[in-house]
Amino acid sequence: MRKHKDIRDYIRTIPDFPHEGILFRDVTTLFADTRGFRMAIDQMLLPYAGMRIDKVVGLEARGFILGGAIAHQLSVGFVPVRKTGKLPGPVLSQSYQLEYGEAVVEIHDDAIAAGETILVVDDLLATGGTAEAGIRLIERLGGEIVGCTFIIDLPELGGRKRLEGLGMDVHALCAFEGA
Amino acid sequence: MRKHKDIRDYIRTIPDFPHEGILFRDVTTLFADTRGFRMAIDQMLLPYAGMRIDKVVGLEARGFILGGAIAHQLSVGFVPVRKTGKLPGPVLSQSYQLEYGEAVVEIHDDAIAAGETILVVDDLLATGGTAEAGIRLIERLGGEIVGCTFIIDLPELGGRKRLEGLGMDVHALCAFEGA
Repeated sequence: MRKHKDIRDYIRTIPDFPHEGILFRDVTTLFADTRGFRMAIDQMLLPYAGMRIDKVVGLEARGFILGGAIAHQLSVGFVPVRKTGKLPGPVLSQSYQLEYGEAVVEIHDDAIAAGETILVVDDLLATGGTAEAGIRLIERLGGEIVGCTFIIDLPELGGRKRLEGLGMDVHALCAFEGA
Repeated sequence: MRKHKDIRDYIRTIPDFPHEGILFRDVTTLFADTRGFRMAIDQMLLPYAGMRIDKVVGLEARGFILGGAIAHQLSVGFVPVRKTGKLPGPVLSQSYQLEYGEAVVEIHDDAIAAGETILVVDDLLATGGTAEAGIRLIERLGGEIVGCTFIIDLPELGGRKRLEGLGMDVHALCAFEGA
């Protein structure tokens, strides 16, 4: 019997990117593959089948690729959470801590209406800092988050625990040990 | 009879972004709308119905949202063209002129195989500088470009003529006068 490839088999590991000592999990090889990309979208949505989702929020930048596909699959709208200064209209901003310093993400202040149900999408869950900032923006607009769906979880970095501590349902297709 | 909204009706205009005197055409209001987003994806693909497309290339960053959705719709892989330094693997680079200075975009050097047919996706065709750089990267890898599809054309900035001069099929859903 033919052995089908698993999600992990499509992900390429690049050593020392962006810094020495980091094993970077590269999902572009998954995205470029017809079967891999479709499998990723289907599996990211599986736990939410039959649930009401009004909008998909994708985190810049790889979350845009996945979030666009997932919004289209669900036939709903897509809302970007972007790095500061990229969105042209009035925004809400949220800062979060990085290893050194801090970063800011933004959402248009009219992108989500109170009570809308939201699925949060990104490729990778590491420390969960960006995802938490995105969650806070959505909740400040009154959005109700159905879940947060990722391709990769890096459990050693604690992102899943952090988001679950905020009451989130967290779904990831695979995990890699070692940051 | 009810008047249905057109693509243009979903696009918001923000004056003086990112610089004074610019009328910024904001597609995030289109993306956030269930009917608008689906209509955009369907209409962007219409001229290419029935044609063989092996992969979709999206230009960073709004082209990722549209390109992800279009790749999923076609059941093919997605390949990003990114700003310099963002892609972790071996890349080809292409520089292009900006009004002041120059910029560089990159593609993974194994993302497209010679002879693969490619649809190029972005939200906005202005001068066509970024699109031309993306086209050159795809052609350096031996990709055969089926077309370049956009939501908005700004004809006064000359992008359509520039891409057509390279032999491209250019499709846009609407045009706005004035940059």
